[in-house]
Amino acid sequence: MTTDPLVVFTPSGKRGRFPKGTPVLTAARQLGVDLDSVCGGRGICSKCQITPSYGEFSKHGVTVAPDALSEWNSVEQRYDDKRGLKAGRRLGCQACVMGDVVIDVPPESQVHRQVVRKAASARTIVMDPATRLYYIEVDEPDMHTPTGDLERVARALKSQWNVPDVTTDLATLSRLQPVLRKGGWKVTVALHKASETAVPRLVAVWPGLHESGLYGLAIDLGSTTIAAHLTDLETGLVVASSGIMNPQIRFGEDLMSRVSYAMMNPGGDREMTAAVREAINALAVDIAKEADIAPSLILETVFVCNPVMHHLLLGIDPVELGQAPFALATSNALNLEARELGLTSLPPSASVYILPCIAGHVGADAAAVALSEEPGKSEDLVLIVDVGTNAELLLGNTTRVLACSSPTGPAFEGAQISSGQRAAPGAIEAIRIDPETKEPRYRIIGSDLWSDEEGFDIAAAASGITGICGSGIIEAVAELRLAGLLDSSGLLGSAEQTGTPRMIPEGRTHSYVIFDGTATGGPLITVTQGDIRAIQLAKSALYAGARLLMDEMGVETVDRVVLAGAFGAHISAKHAVVLGMIPDVPLGKVTSAGNAAGTGARIALCNLGARAEIERVVRQITKVETAIEPRFQEHFVAANAIPHKTDPFAELAKIATLPDVSFNTGGDREGRRRRRR
Amino acid sequence: MTTDPLVVFTPSGKRGRFPKGTPVLTAARQLGVDLDSVCGGRGICSKCQITPSYGEFSKHGVTVAPDALSEWNSVEQRYDDKRGLKAGRRLGCQACVMGDVVIDVPPESQVHRQVVRKAASARTIVMDPATRLYYIEVDEPDMHTPTGDLERVARALKSQWNVPDVTTDLATLSRLQPVLRKGGWKVTVALHKASETAVPRLVAVWPGLHESGLYGLAIDLGSTTIAAHLTDLETGLVVASSGIMNPQIRFGEDLMSRVSYAMMNPGGDREMTAAVREAINALAVDIAKEADIAPSLILETVFVCNPVMHHLLLGIDPVELGQAPFALATSNALNLEARELGLTSLPPSASVYILPCIAGHVGADAAAVALSEEPGKSEDLVLIVDVGTNAELLLGNTTRVLACSSPTGPAFEGAQISSGQRAAPGAIEAIRIDPETKEPRYRIIGSDLWSDEEGFDIAAAASGITGICGSGIIEAVAELRLAGLLDSSGLLGSAEQTGTPRMIPEGRTHSYVIFDGTATGGPLITVTQGDIRAIQLAKSALYAGARLLMDEMGVETVDRVVLAGAFGAHISAKHAVVLGMIPDVPLGKVTSAGNAAGTGARIALCNLGARAEIERVVRQITKVETAIEPRFQEHFVAANAIPHKTDPFAELAKIATLPDVSFNTGGDREGRRRRRR
Repeated sequence: MTTDPLVVFTPSGKRGRFPKGTPVLTAARQLGVDLDSVCGGRGICSKCQITPSYGEFSKHGVTVAPDALSEWNSVEQRYDDKRGLKAGRRLGCQACVMGDVVIDVPPESQVHRQVVRKAASARTIVMDPATRLYYIEVDEPDMHTPTGDLERVARALKSQWNVPDVTTDLATLSRLQPVLRKGGWKVTVALHKASETAVPRLVAVWPGLHESGLYGLAIDLGSTTIAAHLTDLETGLVVASSGIMNPQIRFGEDLMSRVSYAMMNPGGDREMTAAVREAINALAVDIAKEADIAPSLILETVFVCNPVMHHLLLGIDPVELGQAPFALATSNALNLEARELGLTSLPPSASVYILPCIAGHVGADAAAVALSEEPGKSEDLVLIVDVGTNAELLLGNTTRVLACSSPTGPAFEGAQISSGQRAAPGAIEAIRIDPETKEPRYRIIGSDLWSDEEGFDIAAAASGITGICGSGIIEAVAELRLAGLLDSSGLLGSAEQTGTPRMIPEGRTHSYVIFDGTATGGPLITVTQGDIRAIQLAKSALYAGARLLMDEMGVETVDRVVLAGAFGAHISAKHAVVLGMIPDVPLGKVTSAGNAAGTGARIALCNLGARAEIERVVRQITKVETAIEPRFQEHFVAANAIPHKTDPFAELAKIATLPDVSFNTGGDREGRRRRRR
Repeated sequence: MTTDPLVVFTPSGKRGRFPKGTPVLTAARQLGVDLDSVCGGRGICSKCQITPSYGEFSKHGVTVAPDALSEWNSVEQRYDDKRGLKAGRRLGCQACVMGDVVIDVPPESQVHRQVVRKAASARTIVMDPATRLYYIEVDEPDMHTPTGDLERVARALKSQWNVPDVTTDLATLSRLQPVLRKGGWKVTVALHKASETAVPRLVAVWPGLHESGLYGLAIDLGSTTIAAHLTDLETGLVVASSGIMNPQIRFGEDLMSRVSYAMMNPGGDREMTAAVREAINALAVDIAKEADIAPSLILETVFVCNPVMHHLLLGIDPVELGQAPFALATSNALNLEARELGLTSLPPSASVYILPCIAGHVGADAAAVALSEEPGKSEDLVLIVDVGTNAELLLGNTTRVLACSSPTGPAFEGAQISSGQRAAPGAIEAIRIDPETKEPRYRIIGSDLWSDEEGFDIAAAASGITGICGSGIIEAVAELRLAGLLDSSGLLGSAEQTGTPRMIPEGRTHSYVIFDGTATGGPLITVTQGDIRAIQLAKSALYAGARLLMDEMGVETVDRVVLAGAFGAHISAKHAVVLGMIPDVPLGKVTSAGNAAGTGARIALCNLGARAEIERVVRQITKVETAIEPRFQEHFVAANAIPHKTDPFAELAKIATLPDVSFNTGGDREGRRRRRR
C-alpha cells in the first residue's frame, strides 16, 4: 500500500497529503497556507519562494529525503541566473512534492506578513492591503465571438484568480487597450477592494509582470501640519516620510477661526478646500521624489483628520461644525477616488479611504487613535490624550469606551506664548530650574547637550537659541512651580518675593528670564504671567475633558495615561502631572504612543480588515459632549490651579513636594480685577 | 358576523378586504396595486389621486354606498383650494375605506404608467425609470447621539421607504446640509438605481416637496448628427427634441476617417472627445431652454451610438476599431456619472447609461434598435435595416437573431452625390419620371405639393430648389431604371439612346437633368453616372450584408423588412426594392420604424427593466463579420446590378416591369476599362 507524501508547512504547522508531483504552491493553497503569488504559479513573479528542510523531524514525525522535492528545473535556473535565488530557496510553483517534506514559508513570501512598528508599542501591522496585484494572461480578441477587452480581462481574472467580477473607471479603461497589446496579452492588474465583499475595482494595468511595486500614502491631515508616510504596500515598510504646513493657516490659526472664515466669506470654504488639496498634491510629489518612485505607483491613500479638516478636504462647507449641535455632513468612512478629491498628483483612479468620524468634534483622527491604541481591548482603564490644537480624549477598557474633544487652544504647541515657537532647531524643548539657585538649564532642539554642559555653546551656534516650543513651555511652567517661583494659583513671584533677579517686572506682573541674548542681538526668552495664563487655560480644558469622561464612566481615577500626538511623544510625564494636565497616576503609568493617529492611518492603509474593525468600533464609542455641559465649566475652573484646586494628586505627592508659596497680594488682586472688566 | 369591507381596484382588478379606516393608499400597497406616492402618504404630493365609483357593480359583485369612503378631510380641502382636485377625485392617502368600494386608479396616478409612442409601431413604453423621487422627514441632529446628516437621511429612507441602503457622491453630499436646513428637515431626494439590486445612489436633494419634476435625455449620438429627446421621467412624455451636427465632422466625414485622424495625430482622439462633449453640453442647455426647465433637473441621460462614437464619447482612443479584429475596449453597458464624461451642463451626479455594444462594428445603436424592434420576439423572420453612414442589420425571429454592419458610406445621406445635400427645405425628397415622356415631377422638403401641381412655384420660392437629399436620390435612381433611362448594369443612356434631351453628355458619360435653374441663377440639378455608381456601391454593401445574414440563417428569403434610422422613415418601399437595396419581399411587408435607435434610447431612459433586458439580449445576438468574409465580396459584386444580377426579385416582378434596356457600347466599355486602370 502506498500513501501520498505528507507535506508539513512551517511556521503555520498546516499539513496534508498530496499526490506525487503536486506543486508546493498548489499544496499551500489547498491547505490555506499563506504563500504569496502574483503570477498565479507561472514561475514569473518569484513571490512564492519556500525553503524545504531535509533530515529527520521528530516534532513533525517526518523524515525528509534529499529527493523529497522534484529537481531544480529550468524555470528556477533561469530565475536564479537573472535575479539570484537565496541558498536553499525554491520556487513554490515549480518545486513539486515527491516525498514527505517540511516546507518553511519565509516571512517575505507571506501575503499577510507582519510589520513590526518602529515605535515602542508592541502592536504589529498585518499586511492585507485593499489593493493587490494580479498577473493574468488574457484571451486575444476574436472577431467572431466579439467581447470587449475589459470583459476578457474580467474572464481571465475569474478563471485564473477566482475573482468573480470586476469594475473599472474611464481613466483606467482608456489605458487598457494599449497596455494589453504592449504586454502581448500578458498584464499585471491592480485590483482595489473597498471591503471584503465589495466588487473589486480595476485601478491600474501594466504590460507583463509589474515589478516596480505598489505604494500607499498615510496622511495625517492636521490643522497646523500635514504629515505623510509613503508605504510599500507589499512589505508594509515606510519608504519616505514628509510633512508640510497646512496652508489653510492663512485663513485662520485654529479650526474655529477657519469655520468663521467660511461663514464670513462666501466661497471661503472652497478657497480653503483648494488650498489644502494643492498642498497634498505638492506633498505627494515631494514624497514620491524622495523615495524615487513614480507618483503613478501610489494607488492608495488613507486620511485621518479632525472633522473640520475632513469637511474641508471633501469640499463640504464646515459651517455646521461651528455651532451646536455640530452636525457632520457624513460620519461614515468614505471610499473615494483621487480624481473626486482633485488629487491630481495621484493616478485619477487611486483609492482614497477616509476613516469614520465619531462626532462633530471627534473626528477620523480620534478614530485612528482608537484603531492604533485599542482602548476597547485594554483590561485596565486607560485614558488616551491626543494633544494638539484640539485635544481628543478616549477613556475606556474592555467594557466601554468614551470619547470627547476639548478646546485646548494652541498654547501647548507654543502658539500664544510670548517666546513660543514651533518645534524647530533652536527651540528650547526641555528645561530644569534649580530649586535652590533658581537658575535654569535647558536643551534645544538640534542638540542632546544641556546648556550647562561643555560644548553646548558650539552646538547651539548653528541655530541660535530662538524660543520655546510646546514641550519646553510645559516643562518651564512645571519647573517654575517646583522651584517655588510660581504659586498654585498660577501667579509668578517678584524678584523680592522669590529672591532671584531672574524674575523681572512686566507691567504689574513678573516674568522669568530663561535666556537673555539681547547683548549679542539675540532674543530675550522669558516666561511671562500671560504665558502662564495661556497654559493654565489649555491644561484646564484638557483636564476638565478627562474628568468629564471619568464622571461619565463613574470613576475617580484612571489606571494609566497614554499621551498621543506628535507632540505627546515629547512631553515629560512628571511635568505633565505637576502641571495637572492629566489625572494623577504613577509616573510609570504614563506612556507615549507617538503619533497614534498617524499610526492608525498606516494600519488602515495596510490592512483592509482594520478598516472594517474601526468602522465597527466607532459605532460603539460613546461620545461625551463638552461644549454645552455645565460640569465641564466646573471642572475647568477647579483645574485652573497648579496642579489642581481640589483633586488630591496623591501619586504626585509621593515623588515631589510642591513649595507652598503664595504671591497673591492686594496689588495683584487689584490688577486681576481690572483685567476682568 | 361582520366582515371587513371589500376593496376592488380598477383597472388592475386586484381586490382584498381591509379593516374599516384603512387608507386607500395602504390598501393599494398591500395588494401591490400600482398607485404612486412621493410623500409616502403625508397628503403633500397628491400623486396618489384615485376615483371612487359608487352604485352597483355586478361585474365585481359589489354595491358601493355613498359613504364607502371616509369624508373629504381638511388635507384634501387644503389641496383642492390650493391646486384644485379634479371632480370625483380623492387623495388615496387621506380617503379611508369604510365600506365595500370600487376604486379606479387613473393613468396619471400609476407609477408604471404606459406611454404610447407617437410612431406607428404598437410598442408602448412602461414607465419604470432608474431615478425616482422620495419625500422624507429626517431626524434632526442630536449632539449626544452624533451621526452625520447623510446617515440620518439613510435612516429616514429605510424607515419611511424601506430603502435598505444608500450611497452618494461628494457633489451631492456638499449640498445636503444647507438643503436639509432650508427644508426644515423635510426634503425630497432623488435616488438612482443602476439595477434592481444595486444600492441606490442619492443624486439630488431639494428642500420640502420637490414639484418641478425630473427629466431625462435620450441621446442618439450619430456620426453626422446628435439628436436628443428631453423626456419627463414621471409622465414619459417627450417635452422637447433637438438635434445638432456632430462637430467631429471637421476631423472626418465618416467613422473610419475619424479613426484615421486619431491614428495620424497624437492626441487627436482627445480633440474629438472634447469636441463631441462640448456639443452635447450645448445641446443639453438648448433643449432645457426650449422646454423651459432648469438643466439641473436632467438627472438621467441615455446614449446610443456606434462603437467609434462610443469610444470617442468615453475618451477611449478608437484606434483598435480601425483594424481587425476590431476589439472594443468594453462591450458591456455602462453606468456613469455626468462628471466622468465632462458633461458640465448637467448636474455632476446625474446618471449616464450607455447601452451595450454587440461588437466592434455593431454598437449600442444596433442594441437600441434590437430593444425597440425586438427581432427576437418576432414569429416571422424579420430583417431590420438601420440605414446611415454605416448600416446596421439585424435578422432574426424567436429562434435566433443575427447582426452585422455594412459600410454603405454616406451616399444614402446625399453625400458624395453631385447634387446631393442634407435633408433640409429645398431638397428634392421624392421624384417620379414618366416612362413615356421621360419628364420628372418631384417634391421638395417644406411643401407637400408635387412640382406639376398648382402652387408649387409659390411654395418653392421660399427655399428655392436646392439639391437632392438621401431619399430623393434613391427614388431618382429607381425611377430612372423604371423609365428605361438606366440599364440593369447601372449605365445611363445618351439622349440618342433614350430619346430625351434631359440626358446630357458629361465627359464620356451621361447625366439626367431633373431641374435647370441656371437661367435664374439657380442650380442645375442632375443625376450623373458618378451618382449612380455611388448609390450602387452603397446599396450593394447593404444588400450583401443582408445576404450574409441570410446565408448564416440558412434562408433564401425573409418574411418582412423594417427600415430604421431617421432616414429609413423617408425611403419608399417600392423604390428600395427596385434599386435592390433590400431583399425582395412584398411591398406590404416593408415597414418603417422611424428612428428605432432613438426609440430604444427612450425606452432605456424610461424603464430600468429594459436595460437589463437589452443587456441580456445582446449576449444572445450572433454577430456576423462582414469585413473579412470572402462571400461578402461575392454578394457585393452580384448586388451591383439593379436590382440584382442573379437573385430573382419575383415579388418585384409582380408589381413592376423593368425595361430590358442596355446602354453598354464599345465606347463605354472602353471608358470603363480606362477608369479601372
